[in-house]
Amino acid sequence: MIYLNNAATTPLHPDAKKAMLPHLAEIFANPSSVYTPARIVRTKIDAARQAIANAISAQQNEIYFTSGGTESCNWAIKGAASKKGRHVIASAIEHPAVQNTCKYLAANGYEITYLPVDEQGFVSPQLVQNAIRPDTCLVTIIMANNEIGTIQPIADIGKITREHGVLLHTDAVQTVGHIPINVNELGVDLLSLSAHKFYGPKGVGALYVRKGVQIDPLIHGGQQERGYRSGTENVMGIVGMSAALSASLETLERERSRVSALRDSLIHKILTKIPYTKLNGSEGSKRLPGNVNISFRFIEGESLLLHLDMYDFCASTGSACSSGALEPSHVLMAIGLCHEMANGAIRFSLGRENTEEDIDALMKILVPTVQKLRDMSPLYEDFMAKA
Amino acid sequence: MIYLNNAATTPLHPDAKKAMLPHLAEIFANPSSVYTPARIVRTKIDAARQAIANAISAQQNEIYFTSGGTESCNWAIKGAASKKGRHVIASAIEHPAVQNTCKYLAANGYEITYLPVDEQGFVSPQLVQNAIRPDTCLVTIIMANNEIGTIQPIADIGKITREHGVLLHTDAVQTVGHIPINVNELGVDLLSLSAHKFYGPKGVGALYVRKGVQIDPLIHGGQQERGYRSGTENVMGIVGMSAALSASLETLERERSRVSALRDSLIHKILTKIPYTKLNGSEGSKRLPGNVNISFRFIEGESLLLHLDMYDFCASTGSACSSGALEPSHVLMAIGLCHEMANGAIRFSLGRENTEEDIDALMKILVPTVQKLRDMSPLYEDFMAKA
Repeated sequence: MIYLNNAATTPLHPDAKKAMLPHLAEIFANPSSVYTPARIVRTKIDAARQAIANAISAQQNEIYFTSGGTESCNWAIKGAASKKGRHVIASAIEHPAVQNTCKYLAANGYEITYLPVDEQGFVSPQLVQNAIRPDTCLVTIIMANNEIGTIQPIADIGKITREHGVLLHTDAVQTVGHIPINVNELGVDLLSLSAHKFYGPKGVGALYVRKGVQIDPLIHGGQQERGYRSGTENVMGIVGMSAALSASLETLERERSRVSALRDSLIHKILTKIPYTKLNGSEGSKRLPGNVNISFRFIEGESLLLHLDMYDFCASTGSACSSGALEPSHVLMAIGLCHEMANGAIRFSLGRENTEEDIDALMKILVPTVQKLRDMSPLYEDFMAKA
Repeated sequence: MIYLNNAATTPLHPDAKKAMLPHLAEIFANPSSVYTPARIVRTKIDAARQAIANAISAQQNEIYFTSGGTESCNWAIKGAASKKGRHVIASAIEHPAVQNTCKYLAANGYEITYLPVDEQGFVSPQLVQNAIRPDTCLVTIIMANNEIGTIQPIADIGKITREHGVLLHTDAVQTVGHIPINVNELGVDLLSLSAHKFYGPKGVGALYVRKGVQIDPLIHGGQQERGYRSGTENVMGIVGMSAALSASLETLERERSRVSALRDSLIHKILTKIPYTKLNGSEGSKRLPGNVNISFRFIEGESLLLHLDMYDFCASTGSACSSGALEPSHVLMAIGLCHEMANGAIRFSLGRENTEEDIDALMKILVPTVQKLRDMSPLYEDFMAKA
């Protein structure tokens, strides 16, 4: 199997596995208990919290553990939205965790302004500024889009929200562990992250909440996480997340260069060797290191995926097609693609285990497979007849 | 270490560990992806869902995975509360996951009726019936109390809620895997469970939602769990939970008898060997098999716990004292204890790894430790001077 879908999830880092194993055996105390084994667990949670905080230049007491990026986004948005005004600003290319939370708010008396993006997927800070109203309680902008990899100018947006006294949340699920993050330089008040996107376990994440920022809890109960996120801590998940992030940070700059080079190599090979292809999203340092999103004209991304699966390549259409919906991606539509080009898109997302050999192996299959699918395509036949 | 706090959390069952280990290594695909490795993961999740459903006589599509019992309770209550009317009925002895969710609703325009309990902690079905109003949207009653182990007459309450067309939720976190549960016999519409209370991992649980019952999602996003609970599935947690529950069910009746006998042995030994002690809660089959809750007059439960910790015994005061609050337990106050008796309570909760030897070892330490603490107690001095 050649795994090229690291934006969907990543294999567990060996350091994370090592940190987690004792929690499948002798370490099991509830950290809220008052005896010695429980205090040991509590200490491990505190150390993990400090490590996560360090990774984004936050303070330990600004980090709250959650069940993942989706819960973090839900909590940040619903928790902040209840505080002031009933107007929320989001980009048109948010992940469903944010998009559907905004839809929920819209169905409950909130007004949402969705900011358009340009052809590369960038949100304009000026448009954020123009959209802010006296009743705006929150701006939420995805730090890097999961489909097309465009990295937003969050720091510029953060300056504007601060100036206007409006809270800023960023869904940083695709960036944490992959590019450097400093919450102070970004000027964000709330930041969501998810362990399984940086070689940690599934089912655990965190929300950064800037000191002094008050948001309502989403989950009430036994007062864990200083009363803001109740429920017995997912200790194994938390220590695994911390180990994975620490490991990612150790090699961040090196991997960022290496994976970016792989990405550019794959993009170049596809665009030069396969005609009627188009890169979706941004380029260079404004694009996620591992993200390659290409539209293959005349064919369906879904069909291409299934053919690649037969050759043991794992990729994605990049859209949330888990529900089997055949709607074109809202992200690709937002950057101006027509239906045909949106439906012909494939996302390859590269990670720490990928090499140039993987890319060569992929190209060897991709070129004839695309041609084969086009040979069966009535769109292609029409086009060639007219050409 | 002798672990007598199985109501707080349990050691991982070897079957759960075995089921989880492949998910720390080669199995890592996102179940929402469309290639073969993802379909394998999806199949495992489906099998786990079926196993959990079987365990409580539910249908597979009535089980939704969550991050634990607290999230399940929050979701059930908030999700149901938004549907009809603004009146909720709860017992006075709910777990904080329910109690604080009700408080949240009360702060948001809902009215909560807290039903009193009798001296053993029982809720009267008649009082439930009397409390139901036209605007009642939900009755939520803890199936067995986490502090005193009283098992409620949920089936009798279920008959009443059905008759009145009101939804019934039960927090079954303490009972699943320990006593037989059949959602149809209970007549519940919503049931919360948590893996780590039955030898599964922390950070995963489930909510049973009866077919036809509509509740709002708590967490919105990528439409996992048929659109009702978004977020990439905690696959390792889910398969661990399923394995743990299946293992528990295999030995349920045998363990139930064995642990109940241990419980009664410990209760008998304490009450006969240590004067000025009182059992809190119910007796026999109406008490959780592993639950022993005793008030030791003249002393503080917290002090006793710390002394037991020095001898490597793990127990609990039974109250949610994680926050360091010195408020007496709301459960012990609700069954009519005075402050002194409430503060002198200790909970020993027995589990599958405990034996009669553990109880004998405990008694050997408990008898002199209680006496030592009493010898230092001004209350005891006063009492003895007057006696």
